[in-house]
Amino acid sequence: MKLIATILCGGVGSRLWPISRALHPKPFIRLKDGQSLLQKAFLRAAQLSGLTEILTVTNRDLFFKTEDEFREVNLSKIPTSFILEPFGRNTAAAIATASHYVTTKHGHDAIMLVLTADHLIDDQGAFQDAISKAIELATAGKLVTLGIKPKSPETGYGYIEADGNNVLRFVEKPPLKEAQEYFTSDQFLWNSGMFCFMADTMQQQLEQHCPDILAATKNCIEQALTTEGLGITQIILDANEFKNVRDNSIDYAVMEKSNRMAVVPCDIGWSDIGSWSGFGKLSEPDAEGNHVQGDALLHTTRNCTIYSNDGLISTVGVDNLIVIKTPDAVLVVDKSREQDVKHIYAELAARDHTSHKLHCTVHCPWGTYTVLEEGKNFKIKRIEVKPGASLSLQMHHHRSEHWIVVSGTAEVTNGEQVFYVKTNESTYIPAMHKHRLTNPGLIKLVMIEVQSGDYLGEDDIVRFKDNYGRCKQEN
Amino acid sequence: MKLIATILCGGVGSRLWPISRALHPKPFIRLKDGQSLLQKAFLRAAQLSGLTEILTVTNRDLFFKTEDEFREVNLSKIPTSFILEPFGRNTAAAIATASHYVTTKHGHDAIMLVLTADHLIDDQGAFQDAISKAIELATAGKLVTLGIKPKSPETGYGYIEADGNNVLRFVEKPPLKEAQEYFTSDQFLWNSGMFCFMADTMQQQLEQHCPDILAATKNCIEQALTTEGLGITQIILDANEFKNVRDNSIDYAVMEKSNRMAVVPCDIGWSDIGSWSGFGKLSEPDAEGNHVQGDALLHTTRNCTIYSNDGLISTVGVDNLIVIKTPDAVLVVDKSREQDVKHIYAELAARDHTSHKLHCTVHCPWGTYTVLEEGKNFKIKRIEVKPGASLSLQMHHHRSEHWIVVSGTAEVTNGEQVFYVKTNESTYIPAMHKHRLTNPGLIKLVMIEVQSGDYLGEDDIVRFKDNYGRCKQEN
Repeated sequence: MKLIATILCGGVGSRLWPISRALHPKPFIRLKDGQSLLQKAFLRAAQLSGLTEILTVTNRDLFFKTEDEFREVNLSKIPTSFILEPFGRNTAAAIATASHYVTTKHGHDAIMLVLTADHLIDDQGAFQDAISKAIELATAGKLVTLGIKPKSPETGYGYIEADGNNVLRFVEKPPLKEAQEYFTSDQFLWNSGMFCFMADTMQQQLEQHCPDILAATKNCIEQALTTEGLGITQIILDANEFKNVRDNSIDYAVMEKSNRMAVVPCDIGWSDIGSWSGFGKLSEPDAEGNHVQGDALLHTTRNCTIYSNDGLISTVGVDNLIVIKTPDAVLVVDKSREQDVKHIYAELAARDHTSHKLHCTVHCPWGTYTVLEEGKNFKIKRIEVKPGASLSLQMHHHRSEHWIVVSGTAEVTNGEQVFYVKTNESTYIPAMHKHRLTNPGLIKLVMIEVQSGDYLGEDDIVRFKDNYGRCKQEN
Repeated sequence: MKLIATILCGGVGSRLWPISRALHPKPFIRLKDGQSLLQKAFLRAAQLSGLTEILTVTNRDLFFKTEDEFREVNLSKIPTSFILEPFGRNTAAAIATASHYVTTKHGHDAIMLVLTADHLIDDQGAFQDAISKAIELATAGKLVTLGIKPKSPETGYGYIEADGNNVLRFVEKPPLKEAQEYFTSDQFLWNSGMFCFMADTMQQQLEQHCPDILAATKNCIEQALTTEGLGITQIILDANEFKNVRDNSIDYAVMEKSNRMAVVPCDIGWSDIGSWSGFGKLSEPDAEGNHVQGDALLHTTRNCTIYSNDGLISTVGVDNLIVIKTPDAVLVVDKSREQDVKHIYAELAARDHTSHKLHCTVHCPWGTYTVLEEGKNFKIKRIEVKPGASLSLQMHHHRSEHWIVVSGTAEVTNGEQVFYVKTNESTYIPAMHKHRLTNPGLIKLVMIEVQSGDYLGEDDIVRFKDNYGRCKQEN
């Protein structure tokens, strides 16, 4: 049997702004143990016996970042592949596209296990038991969904009414009264968004219930640009093809209509960390019921969730608040209104406010850069380059750059010259000079770049060569 | 007649943390019009007819910063002098010391007008009328206090019961019930902390009611180091002498005991901006009653005071909160508890947390530096040097420095060499090299400094020459 874990990594998690952002969405949030939710999802899959490959469906702008996350934890070198979407088209498109890839590469009877990228599962043993049962049902031709035994009368989740492994019906997010009834009943489970099926079963069901999505995604996979190397496969979907795929969830498109459904009820310590108080509860409260991470000084403060990854948060005389601080934004929200943080995110996106999209630190294929300050005619960045990585061979029309190496060694191409710049040495790149920065060493290169010029936009870049295929792209 | 305005610039204003800090106290807070409270106090004095000199009593660590503030607004080149205390010793010590200086320099019959450095007075015309009346009474040998007609039943101020210009009694901060009675009565005034008297009258009254303070401060003035130049006099008090002066307020030490008291009732648009909601009220509220300064996005938010000087503040579903953001600290406080912000300040001071003392930008006699980032073995600063100013000739044992000029021109001494570094040029100062940075130009010099080394503390500095007498000091 071939088992393909399929991680769906889409969606921003806007209720977790200002940590979640368009280009740093919820799966990339790191927890106290240093692992991101995405890494936890990867490891959850990696530990399953008989796993053949981990396939991830995500936005193409998140590829290098996702790959970085995986490389950190993929110690047993499990083959990974990526279906890279130009934009989000909901779960039916993602799963249909994945089913074409899996069918082609691994055959019709390969088992696909669809996992979410941004949830927590505490009990790996129970999870593995549930997956074994799901695989058994999938092998028998079922579309299996994992149903979570409710821990509270949640009104924010969809429910599945079940009788053993039989699905009686799907229920939309219920009002509180119904949710309370479901909670006390034994027959209702939360719809977790995790599925297991044979690739062929999914293709048959798509054919039956939404043949347009099946056909359009088949076309996408056939037209996709595929690259392979170092155990990594990239399938880059074309935007012109992908825009023809109808936007629908797999629940609406297939699951709620199919007569092949089965459910595996499970109690696996699942949580979706859907909001800041959910995030807060991952750490122990203090004596006043406050969940605190980062530098904080609280005075007569109760039942608050406090998180800072940069600088001090002080509170006086407040109850039931969420206070989140990043280098460039602060969020203060009453706990009863935490669902509304998504409105803040939406409004910032509408205004194209930087803080909806990027953090001060931006991840690139070769490493990261952090804007430390922008002033009139100058900009200062800390640049970190991974061992062996290179920025593109590039040129700027309007800015010159001073580079000072503060850790590691840089190999610098400046015009016709190639030379090394060691820790505590510097060099200067005039405007209009072709240049390239490489880390030839075995440890991280950390460099301070001081840009000078009349125009310092990121778009003043001409790329001549790039290891990451970005010569024609914007970034 | 000689009229000496005497500005008392002491006290932190800890209820306005995180903007107010030990080395950036309340008088230095800038309002929306770009002027600091201290500059407003200076201009208030400067506009009085017949003014001879403006004398400021402040902490010696605030001298250069205070002088910078004054230079910006002292367009008519009024002579200024500074009594520089090594530490605070309350108002009796400050006024007694000032009276010795004034008596010696301007004679026994010089009139002293004592003003606060951190209050607002909206009605300059009414203020000048009140001062004219006060001078008249002072000339007749009275100790005159300015009494503010109450605008509300304040429990946080002391009161004066008056009959015309006659003081009947001083009243300590009253309970609400009494405050309400005082408010409806015509006889009660707020004690403003502004006074007017002949230097000789004050000396006689000090001799009568607290001769020890008079004698100890006389000794301080006699032992002080005095320097003069460019119309500026500095009287630097010796710490060993000054510590012998008893700590007492002028109200307790003299005013409440003297039979020479008079009061000038006035209605001058006075406010003390004693807290964040007071500060907020200086700007117009939005339709929901929020006072907002800086980048903010409010959602279902009412009656809040929001202030950011760096980055975005977002709020959802909150009422009656104060949210203040600086580059390194956030304060969130319920308005009903805003007096307790002083506890946060006290706790931060007890922990020696940087944010109680300094902002990221630190003012020096030659300009400012701003710490942009500190990492392992490196620190990055933006350094701004005023035209004509020089840092000390100095050396570091443990760090080397890269300097990149991003605006203006630097004159650099590096070992035996002296040379110029222009905009977009750089230079390198190795550890153990004597060096000096000067701005020889007419515009501000802005430079990025990247320090490298195993130890990067500000105390790794050996000063050989300094224009500001800091060769033996710590800073």
